[in-house]
Amino acid sequence: MATSVSPRETDTSALRFKVEAQQGEARAGVLTTRRGQIQTPVFMPVGTAGTVKGIRFEALESSDLDARIILGNTYHLWLRPGIEVIKSAGGLHRFIGWNRALLTDSGGFQVFSLGALRKITEEGTEFRSHVDGSLRFLSPEVSMEVQAALGSDISMVFDECAPGEAGHEETERSMNLTARWAKRSREAFDRLQSDGADAGYIEAEGLSGTQALFGIVQGSSHLDLRRISLEQTVNIGFDGYAIGGLSVGEEKSVLFEVLDDIAPRMPKEFPRYLMGVGTPEDLVGAVARGVDMFDCVLPTRNGRTGQAFTSSGKLNIKNSQWTNDARPLDESCRCSVCKRHSRAYLRHLYMSGEMLASVLLTHHNLAFFLDTMRGVRQSIRSGDFPKFRREFTGRLGANGE
Amino acid sequence: MATSVSPRETDTSALRFKVEAQQGEARAGVLTTRRGQIQTPVFMPVGTAGTVKGIRFEALESSDLDARIILGNTYHLWLRPGIEVIKSAGGLHRFIGWNRALLTDSGGFQVFSLGALRKITEEGTEFRSHVDGSLRFLSPEVSMEVQAALGSDISMVFDECAPGEAGHEETERSMNLTARWAKRSREAFDRLQSDGADAGYIEAEGLSGTQALFGIVQGSSHLDLRRISLEQTVNIGFDGYAIGGLSVGEEKSVLFEVLDDIAPRMPKEFPRYLMGVGTPEDLVGAVARGVDMFDCVLPTRNGRTGQAFTSSGKLNIKNSQWTNDARPLDESCRCSVCKRHSRAYLRHLYMSGEMLASVLLTHHNLAFFLDTMRGVRQSIRSGDFPKFRREFTGRLGANGE
Repeated sequence: MATSVSPRETDTSALRFKVEAQQGEARAGVLTTRRGQIQTPVFMPVGTAGTVKGIRFEALESSDLDARIILGNTYHLWLRPGIEVIKSAGGLHRFIGWNRALLTDSGGFQVFSLGALRKITEEGTEFRSHVDGSLRFLSPEVSMEVQAALGSDISMVFDECAPGEAGHEETERSMNLTARWAKRSREAFDRLQSDGADAGYIEAEGLSGTQALFGIVQGSSHLDLRRISLEQTVNIGFDGYAIGGLSVGEEKSVLFEVLDDIAPRMPKEFPRYLMGVGTPEDLVGAVARGVDMFDCVLPTRNGRTGQAFTSSGKLNIKNSQWTNDARPLDESCRCSVCKRHSRAYLRHLYMSGEMLASVLLTHHNLAFFLDTMRGVRQSIRSGDFPKFRREFTGRLGANGE
Repeated sequence: MATSVSPRETDTSALRFKVEAQQGEARAGVLTTRRGQIQTPVFMPVGTAGTVKGIRFEALESSDLDARIILGNTYHLWLRPGIEVIKSAGGLHRFIGWNRALLTDSGGFQVFSLGALRKITEEGTEFRSHVDGSLRFLSPEVSMEVQAALGSDISMVFDECAPGEAGHEETERSMNLTARWAKRSREAFDRLQSDGADAGYIEAEGLSGTQALFGIVQGSSHLDLRRISLEQTVNIGFDGYAIGGLSVGEEKSVLFEVLDDIAPRMPKEFPRYLMGVGTPEDLVGAVARGVDMFDCVLPTRNGRTGQAFTSSGKLNIKNSQWTNDARPLDESCRCSVCKRHSRAYLRHLYMSGEMLASVLLTHHNLAFFLDTMRGVRQSIRSGDFPKFRREFTGRLGANGE
């Protein structure tokens, strides 16, 4: 077993994390944030522009989903409605009406996705807004300031994300820039916290009440660089450690190769967050390698394009074979959509261009992802994770998609 | 006071209606359908293609809305998904997952709305499907067959709807055609019921368990023709009587002129349904003239285009004055949207093209319409309807829109 890198001693108490059960590398634990406790491994629905698309907050809170933490995109919220609006509301929680935990990304990944529209310098990234075409500048300092104004419970450092197929030299340059930006992020973040800029500050028993900050390990598919990036990041010291730059166009096998090598070297007493990943198989496979937190647009985005995730694999609701099918999307699902509606009805809604198709498919998909994580947690605690994983993965092939 | 036309003695017991309180012409009563009791006056949300757009059935059933009956459009459902699909599911209730009452229109109004694309003969109406361009034919017999297959609890006769500005001669011709079609509708309906074609048949205590059928009074703005149409319709004999052909382009004043003249002549012991009307003021004004049932797309359609109905009048969520407004859409509304979300947030969602904007505005608008009807009912029962109406109408002007 690899020896994990020791984190810098920090006196922050913005977050508490405790691993309560472990089986192989898989961990079940509790992440205590200033807005409540979160059982890990956890899946975070993506609420890009201050909304998990098509889903009411009441549904996120319902026992069907019971999402304890959702993600907001700094890039999107910064451009629209803009920070002044959210500040005026008293932070993102109050602006959107959500009292549970929020994690915000740094905006780095969205800027990366813009491709040719951006210009990266040592100082930061210049790009054109997709909303109004205006020229904008994002840097570690700006990102920290925006995230403090949003008042998310967990902020992310501003990083650069190299393409999945980047060569060693390009990746190394990018990784070193990320390390320098991480240091600047940490410094700006600490300044902002001590200045009281955090719009989400809340008295929380046993915690400082301020935001937490996670570092991000980059290095693309190059394991030697991943190890260096991990060391650079842990040396700065954060409340949690993320693995970025995966699911960005690299070979499918790279994900697990990187996790196999890097996850066991990550500090054991801190939460590990795999950013932007992935399919249900990816999630369960990553848990087996020691990951605690996930976010991904798949359940929401694919719900809007008619794809359901089920315990028997993917199901395309547009398919004419469902025209008269009275069965629910997933016969082993207990969500409100599966309890009430047939594939035939959902197909009709989708083919008619009805908004309710997106609403219902997204709800089911989120229920499936969140329920999968519940199953993962229970099985780790009861010592049955390998069996759970084997059966779960076996069933996924049943639809043949 | 006008003497009401006496209905033919019928032995149907598909529906029971009882006026329990009356103040002036305004009536509060109970409509008993095979799928439960409905307090009147009642507003029916429109569920065009088997869905009240953007609203989950759980929301319709919640105490926020508590819709006891919704409307389905025969035209839309007939064209897509088609009757075979709905029959195969066991009727519309089972197809969409809704166990409360359903009313279906006859398809006549949608065909009327197609304008130039239709051809009307004595036999029926030929038109091209907006879904696939195919040539279709709708007649009283076809409409009754389709509505029986849908298994709605209340069916409507197949009528012709003259334009709001139609002259006396054109309206008379159209009205007489409607009368002949009403008779054919009644005969086809009775045959289908005795053949057991009703897909929604359900054992119901004290009722026959079959569908009910409503007649429709036409005659445009011509009061002499309206009176003849009423007599023609009542002579055939139905379970309820609707007023059609209003809100179709005529002067605003025509609505109340027609109701003032016609409503008091309608059979007192049967429910009176004003089709496709209207704004909150229209509804309350029509109740004051003796109407019991309403349907209208305004709360749902306008919700999708950013218009909220509030107790202070209409509110356009796109307006920049709401950018930082922390107030709910309607400060006197107790719906889940107003309890949780600000105008600033709803504006942000709308401006960002987020589906949740439509979902939340529609929910609030339906809550406002349904809550208005609750207020109407309570005030009639407590003898305070004139006061309710005066205060309600007075407040509506507050927003100045």
